[in-house]
Amino acid sequence: MKHARVVLEGRSHAATVHDDAWLRLDDGRTISADAVQHWLPPLPTATPRPRTILALGLNYADHAKELAFKAPDEPLAFLKGENALTGHKAYTPRPPGVRFMHYECELVVVVGRTAKNVRQADAYDHIAGYTVANDYAIRDYLENWYRPNLRVKNRDACTPIGPWLVDAADVSDPMNLALQTTVNGKITQRGNTRDMIFSVPFLIEYFSSFMTLQPGDIILTGTPDGVVDCPVGAQLACEIEQIGCLDNTLIEGAMT
Amino acid sequence: MKHARVVLEGRSHAATVHDDAWLRLDDGRTISADAVQHWLPPLPTATPRPRTILALGLNYADHAKELAFKAPDEPLAFLKGENALTGHKAYTPRPPGVRFMHYECELVVVVGRTAKNVRQADAYDHIAGYTVANDYAIRDYLENWYRPNLRVKNRDACTPIGPWLVDAADVSDPMNLALQTTVNGKITQRGNTRDMIFSVPFLIEYFSSFMTLQPGDIILTGTPDGVVDCPVGAQLACEIEQIGCLDNTLIEGAMT
Repeated sequence: MKHARVVLEGRSHAATVHDDAWLRLDDGRTISADAVQHWLPPLPTATPRPRTILALGLNYADHAKELAFKAPDEPLAFLKGENALTGHKAYTPRPPGVRFMHYECELVVVVGRTAKNVRQADAYDHIAGYTVANDYAIRDYLENWYRPNLRVKNRDACTPIGPWLVDAADVSDPMNLALQTTVNGKITQRGNTRDMIFSVPFLIEYFSSFMTLQPGDIILTGTPDGVVDCPVGAQLACEIEQIGCLDNTLIEGAMT
Repeated sequence: MKHARVVLEGRSHAATVHDDAWLRLDDGRTISADAVQHWLPPLPTATPRPRTILALGLNYADHAKELAFKAPDEPLAFLKGENALTGHKAYTPRPPGVRFMHYECELVVVVGRTAKNVRQADAYDHIAGYTVANDYAIRDYLENWYRPNLRVKNRDACTPIGPWLVDAADVSDPMNLALQTTVNGKITQRGNTRDMIFSVPFLIEYFSSFMTLQPGDIILTGTPDGVVDCPVGAQLACEIEQIGCLDNTLIEGAMT
């Protein structure tokens, strides 16, 4: 099953998605996905606000190489604020004057059950489902002692996620999903989740060894190589096999 | 006015604090502060869960020097997860085998009104009040590309805050408050908020230039020099003039 959250006529609704084309709303109505004007981050209705948003850097060896870093020995993780999240078909600002702003197509893990000292072998029992993120980054800003600089990775609306949440049971193997990004219809990034340095089960074990993961917490699992600068007006589509295709448009501005 | 949140007989209560000794609960009862067994992070009742927890590193020149870093040119900020928070008189685990775990006494700013592109001159209009944090850090863990490593700064219960929230109107000058930490009754850290490199108004302007601050969001503003390793069993008291004295005890263990 695929679950979305959308706003219609000023009210937010939970919805289930059928054939990626029709939404059945919580009030019984069925509408076309094309008719939705405002998609919210597809978090579970019971936990629409993640307590913690974790993100991985350099979790695909090829991308680490592309950025001229050596592959890490332990997960390189950082936190994001809820302010960074936005939904499918949203507009993300490209700040005036920046020289290199790139997308990052990432598999998102949504925690479904409290996880504390969970072993890899049991990790999947704690996952509610998956969605797609585009975790934009801006290379211009100086990296300082604490990295990543919040101006790079924590701007308002810099991280669209969606379009919907796919139940874990419906994904055959999260560690073998093709992903790709197109910019204005042209493929610029291709990869497969099997190339992650630290797998989803490893990450659940690692994080839950020092912090309790709660239902609704999310983990952005990193991006493969193939990132290019995107101008204002660029239409981005981040797609992951079996999960969905997340659309986003870059607009000019510091904040929406 | 000082505002606390406490748990009594399994239920959480909002309370106002009188003479730092008596709590008037939201059900009309008055109890002694000494009788409270479980203090929650003193966040506003309307926003008990911060959307974003910001923390500053090296925001006092003397502490930057102590850690052998040069003073930063822009705020060195990172995010914390809600899992890290705990309250007054809580127990914080010192993981087995670590060699250097130190406290950090910090003034905490609690946002009271949405802040977006706010100028320094207007910054105080967006602040609800202040409390105290002890933002523990563990130096053992390798710093990696993304810093601070979450194992250092985002462990469960590694950041007690409290004891209460003091209304902004009751603090004469947040940029001139003495702070000190005692370990088992001995003073080990002394400082004054006037020595911050980036002042509270500056921080509000800086953060709100790229991310919207919401009511209930909190900012931990950094610590002065004088940090020492603290063993299991150490009783810590972080005190800030006009705000309060936050007690915490270190216990052994990976997670509570």
